[in-house]
Amino acid sequence: MNSAIVKPVKQLASPVDLYSPVIDYQQISRARFVEELKAFIHFPSVSVQPEHDQDTRRCAAWLANHLRKIGMEKVMIVTTQGHPVIYAEKCHTPGKPTVLIYGHYDVQPADPLAEWQFPPFEPVIRGDHLYGRGASDDKGQLFTHVKALEVLLRSGQGLPVNIKCLFEGEEEMGSPHLPAFVVVNQQMLAADCAVMSDIQIPSARQPAITYALRGSINFELEIIGQNRELHSGVLGGAIRNPLQVLCEMIAQLHDRTGRINIPNFYDRVRKWDAQERAYMKKVESSDQSILRDAGVGVGWGERGYSIYERTTIRPVITVTSIHGGYQGEGVKAAIPTRALAKLNFRLVPDQNLREIDQLFRGHLKQMTPPGIRLQIRTSAPSRPVLMDRKHPVVMAAVHAYRHGFGTAPVFLRNGGTIPVVNLIQDILHIPVVLMGFGLPDDRIHGSNEKFYLPNFFNGIKTSIRFLTEVGKWQRTSRVR
Amino acid sequence: MNSAIVKPVKQLASPVDLYSPVIDYQQISRARFVEELKAFIHFPSVSVQPEHDQDTRRCAAWLANHLRKIGMEKVMIVTTQGHPVIYAEKCHTPGKPTVLIYGHYDVQPADPLAEWQFPPFEPVIRGDHLYGRGASDDKGQLFTHVKALEVLLRSGQGLPVNIKCLFEGEEEMGSPHLPAFVVVNQQMLAADCAVMSDIQIPSARQPAITYALRGSINFELEIIGQNRELHSGVLGGAIRNPLQVLCEMIAQLHDRTGRINIPNFYDRVRKWDAQERAYMKKVESSDQSILRDAGVGVGWGERGYSIYERTTIRPVITVTSIHGGYQGEGVKAAIPTRALAKLNFRLVPDQNLREIDQLFRGHLKQMTPPGIRLQIRTSAPSRPVLMDRKHPVVMAAVHAYRHGFGTAPVFLRNGGTIPVVNLIQDILHIPVVLMGFGLPDDRIHGSNEKFYLPNFFNGIKTSIRFLTEVGKWQRTSRVR
Repeated sequence: MNSAIVKPVKQLASPVDLYSPVIDYQQISRARFVEELKAFIHFPSVSVQPEHDQDTRRCAAWLANHLRKIGMEKVMIVTTQGHPVIYAEKCHTPGKPTVLIYGHYDVQPADPLAEWQFPPFEPVIRGDHLYGRGASDDKGQLFTHVKALEVLLRSGQGLPVNIKCLFEGEEEMGSPHLPAFVVVNQQMLAADCAVMSDIQIPSARQPAITYALRGSINFELEIIGQNRELHSGVLGGAIRNPLQVLCEMIAQLHDRTGRINIPNFYDRVRKWDAQERAYMKKVESSDQSILRDAGVGVGWGERGYSIYERTTIRPVITVTSIHGGYQGEGVKAAIPTRALAKLNFRLVPDQNLREIDQLFRGHLKQMTPPGIRLQIRTSAPSRPVLMDRKHPVVMAAVHAYRHGFGTAPVFLRNGGTIPVVNLIQDILHIPVVLMGFGLPDDRIHGSNEKFYLPNFFNGIKTSIRFLTEVGKWQRTSRVR
Repeated sequence: MNSAIVKPVKQLASPVDLYSPVIDYQQISRARFVEELKAFIHFPSVSVQPEHDQDTRRCAAWLANHLRKIGMEKVMIVTTQGHPVIYAEKCHTPGKPTVLIYGHYDVQPADPLAEWQFPPFEPVIRGDHLYGRGASDDKGQLFTHVKALEVLLRSGQGLPVNIKCLFEGEEEMGSPHLPAFVVVNQQMLAADCAVMSDIQIPSARQPAITYALRGSINFELEIIGQNRELHSGVLGGAIRNPLQVLCEMIAQLHDRTGRINIPNFYDRVRKWDAQERAYMKKVESSDQSILRDAGVGVGWGERGYSIYERTTIRPVITVTSIHGGYQGEGVKAAIPTRALAKLNFRLVPDQNLREIDQLFRGHLKQMTPPGIRLQIRTSAPSRPVLMDRKHPVVMAAVHAYRHGFGTAPVFLRNGGTIPVVNLIQDILHIPVVLMGFGLPDDRIHGSNEKFYLPNFFNGIKTSIRFLTEVGKWQRTSRVR
């Protein structure tokens, strides 16, 4: 921190005075902040698509350069076996706690492109919304913290804590190279707490802190039949068809009530007591409002649970892709040789990833008919996360939201998975607070993804206040 | 017919003498015939793929030109709304019957290309086999008749009958424009019988005449869910997933015994008496040999029937394509908006196409859950065909095979569908004899399709003898 800038700030006394240069700077810079965010979204940093590797690298370079520009130090683009990790820090206040800010600059694929109202990487503003792939997940939310840092650094306020930034480029791939990076760089990444904003809040008027995430595991199934395509008129109905076998396997994963049909799958699923379910009931969005936000007419799923419960305390399996047979126009009267499917499992405490992997493989193996070979590939396993709602870092986030959004946050569970939360907790041994700025109708992972700009601006205020609240901690009372 | 050529032929007396110039010509021309067939296969005349429209047109032009070269007359490339029909004739013997030769110059798509040992449109010979898409279906078999005509025309033998050729370019699309062509050109196409070789015989040592074909009908299902992709972590397991719905629908099309599960589907399926089933038993290939030829380890299908029966006198449903969700590399954690499948039905006497269409639509409609829209498109309906085994045109084919292959043919049913057989029978009111030169391991519709060259040469002999046998009929005894 530059002492020339720090001095006048230190002369300010009251909280109002303390924030006025910050507020001024923020107000003046709004339009520029949005333009910068558009520039950030402009890079098609689709990590899972090799054809976008170059774009992803360019995006990383842009972000690193931006961090340097706002005054961050030791900015590094760290090469991994995949997409680079960006690290930056500003650690000039030895008596103060250190906050690790995590985010990801990679985005989900944009296909099918035909479903986009605007080209996904040509961000445009319509009303209060900024449209583009990654606008909410996670470029917009990551950038909220970056702009909070800029405001603090450039307004003359200075940082109330030490800051470390960890921005990865492989979150949408399941962060394959981040664990090694974090393990190797534990010292560099050491901090008192972490904050990340890669999550949604119920509405712009109702912020929330997410205290529970589901685990996740992905499977790719390949059903392999005869070694060459065969005429469907000649041999259809006389040999096993990999497409039909695949459909039968998938169809049998659920029973008619929406319950998963894999033996012993629910054995370790935690049963919540009446108190917790009552708390959940109090804060949950109604089925109606969840469906309305999603643009869906009717719900479906395991009986006896609300949608909020189904998507937070209950495990689910989603088929995300199927493929097999002739994919061109018209008809090819052939029995194909193979069929593919991708399945995404979401798991809850106290399910065990390895056990679920084995149960599923065993179940499918037992369903595989003679004449068919089955190959299963597992990827991106991540454990469920559950956090103490009374933790001091959570309390700092509560104060921050009150300030930034004018109302106290609720505590929510989220059905999604953020593997890096496990990683940070397990390797760096620090708590992770999940402060969302995204909204339920942001259409993350879908077409026409967008970010609600008032949340961007309120988020910047919230982030500033969060860092200020953590700055009040005694460095000695390092929170574990 | 050129009288200068005809004369010396007429001086010949005994059957042996009669055929010697034909045999000579055929022997001398073998290598050229094969080179010409390779040139024919070289055109990627994939009728269902618009990117090959130009190739298909070029293939038609080549074939028409070839017919002119061998001495056929009135050769026409007739434009349709799709791919052109080729017509040619040689009708200089007014007292003799007229034979209509049908074939198709279009081929199935070649994908997946990776499964081909040689590029599909760069035909190569390995041993006695000529490899290439269309080598057997139907370019090689069509060309067998063309070369028979050439031998007769060029050897000085002359044609023993009047000949009309009808070669279409849309068979693999279900011949959408041929019916209109045949209806409009009934006069031009008038004949006493038709012959087509677009079918297989059990082995090179066992020719066969196909007297029964199954009907066919294709369905394309589109399962439409919510109007945008939704995050599988956020809403997976809480709304209907079109991929899962599709899989459930397909899985429920068969019961556990391999029987089709659509109510009333079997109501009109003809029950064959003990005599017919005994005849079938006598001529059928064993399950083992069918599976071995197909390169398949184990069979499957409706209980109580041999594979031959399952694929000839029993109806079947084959899923030929499924598609839905993210198709790129890696994982996209989203619930897709739609899923697609293509189904090929094979039907038998006395099932009714319209009734089956309605039964299937009704069945799927009743299976469609709330929140899901179902679209069904029907295409290429074709009735089953059944022919009298004692018909004179069949007897001519028996003699021809005896001569060409040195052994009497068996009478077989075929599980495939040749819609043009219905068309010729219904519009031109003439019998159609199905003389196959293809073999069960030709891999038609599959990768590494090939044609067994000895069958090409024996086929030419067979075709010549067939025309000669028909030439013995009295023109007045026109066979209906």
